[in-house]
Amino acid sequence: MAETKAPVLIVGGGTIGCGWAAAFAAAGHPVQVYDPAPETAGRLALLWKKALPVLKRLGGDCTEAPPSHIARLDHVERAVAFVQEALPERLELKREVLAEVERHVPADAVIASSTSGLSPSAIQNALSHPERLVIGHPCNPPYLMPVVEICAGAKTSAVAMDLADAVYTGLGKTVLRLKREMPGHLVNRLQAALWREAVHLAAEGVASVDDIEKAVTKGLAARWCVTGPTAIFHLAGGDAGLAKFFDDLGPEVEKWWASLGAPQLGADTRAALIDGVAQSPDLADPEALAALRDAQVPEILNLLSGTGSRSSSKHR
Amino acid sequence: MAETKAPVLIVGGGTIGCGWAAAFAAAGHPVQVYDPAPETAGRLALLWKKALPVLKRLGGDCTEAPPSHIARLDHVERAVAFVQEALPERLELKREVLAEVERHVPADAVIASSTSGLSPSAIQNALSHPERLVIGHPCNPPYLMPVVEICAGAKTSAVAMDLADAVYTGLGKTVLRLKREMPGHLVNRLQAALWREAVHLAAEGVASVDDIEKAVTKGLAARWCVTGPTAIFHLAGGDAGLAKFFDDLGPEVEKWWASLGAPQLGADTRAALIDGVAQSPDLADPEALAALRDAQVPEILNLLSGTGSRSSSKHR
Repeated sequence: MAETKAPVLIVGGGTIGCGWAAAFAAAGHPVQVYDPAPETAGRLALLWKKALPVLKRLGGDCTEAPPSHIARLDHVERAVAFVQEALPERLELKREVLAEVERHVPADAVIASSTSGLSPSAIQNALSHPERLVIGHPCNPPYLMPVVEICAGAKTSAVAMDLADAVYTGLGKTVLRLKREMPGHLVNRLQAALWREAVHLAAEGVASVDDIEKAVTKGLAARWCVTGPTAIFHLAGGDAGLAKFFDDLGPEVEKWWASLGAPQLGADTRAALIDGVAQSPDLADPEALAALRDAQVPEILNLLSGTGSRSSSKHR
Repeated sequence: MAETKAPVLIVGGGTIGCGWAAAFAAAGHPVQVYDPAPETAGRLALLWKKALPVLKRLGGDCTEAPPSHIARLDHVERAVAFVQEALPERLELKREVLAEVERHVPADAVIASSTSGLSPSAIQNALSHPERLVIGHPCNPPYLMPVVEICAGAKTSAVAMDLADAVYTGLGKTVLRLKREMPGHLVNRLQAALWREAVHLAAEGVASVDDIEKAVTKGLAARWCVTGPTAIFHLAGGDAGLAKFFDDLGPEVEKWWASLGAPQLGADTRAALIDGVAQSPDLADPEALAALRDAQVPEILNLLSGTGSRSSSKHR
């Protein structure tokens, strides 16, 4: 039963790195987290404790060893087959550290970068084996959220993309394949677009931040779990779907789009948002909100995937 | 136990009107649907049949009489206390029909318009009692979706707003109060903002329509059910919340926003979307997708509200 999973090296022990480490470890991968900072071990232990109940709710067996911390690259296990980089979002830092990492892992180990904004082509140019670099961008927190976006740079090999796809699928993730590089990939761009209009509505005093949040949390989001942004309008077109919707309402939609806001984050806008958050009962306690997220989101995901708890076969 | 609920008149027997009728009837309101079209009765019966299992899943008792159809306004029940207008989105039509409706209902009956794009001030100017007109805008379908947006026009009374709030709350709805008129209110503007970027990403060939939909359905939406568009960045700021996030990443966010797309719905863009929908296994059968929505969304809503099935007290 205990199929042996490939050893994984996580590079960078921040929130994302530690979150990745938990997701890989719970799926049965031996995991090392490389970070020179000595406090990494403590952060890793804390995050493992927080992530474990979530991973169990999602159907992980979680009988594997917790991830371990290494402060020096010459402690990397020889057989590492997959490297997940989760360093701060600075191109030069990623290039330097990954070039060093490359000297300690096998020549065919795939290196996946968690970057949301940097170009894979720019990162891979620092490597001796640029073809092994892919983007593997998670949603936060990586131990909870099911989506991973993968994207090739100009020199990335198809083999590397396929291996990353298989590794993430083995974690129970839904893999989205970008066809070309785009800063922010899909998830962060969609998120930024929604947030921009939410900020605009708050800044213009159309409703309280609390009511704007509820427009999403109490309404749109549950429907978006099943019918995505395009599906909703496809359904609105009846039997003839989106084609009919465009015929009937295309010009109307262009008018909606033209009327959307384009706020800047000046002092007034910031103050309106910060005040609005302070006045929202649901947002007053960020710790409690994060705990609620970690409790409810796995249940929603299980419900959507049609399992009481997701089958452990998805995790191993 | 059978508290008597106020009789409701629905004006307009299309999809939204029939959906409203089901929501009101299931909550115990006697409901008449006014529409001169004779086929309304059939549409109403069909929708009631579709909505009933959803309303039961949401905790409605559904022991009340189904809504009835009237083709003439002189058949309106005398004691109507609440009118829900759901006519096509044309200002002159709404103004004419509501002025006529006013002559058949008590002077203190509140009239709520389902409009998403028209001005309440412009609608109410056609009425003898303009102070009774409010916006009461549902999400589609109104029998399923929990959010209702209410908004006053220039002449709307506080009494009318409070009554509309109480009536919708009595249906188990979450009421969002707009502080001022805005075409599209909150829900449709947020939805349009998300869709615009989804269309941009598809039109630019960044990913398949299917993968763009999944970025929402398999990832963002489940998290948005708990943490709305602003809450996510409030949490990202750690202990200092949104203020710290703005300090650290404000200029970065402005860059994200500036890079978002502003597509037009030209022939190429339409074709890219229509083709993408045709190639998506999840979107191929709109009937099946709507049925899945009606099955899964109530479960998600029940889960979020912490009830196996929502308490019937919320509905009566």
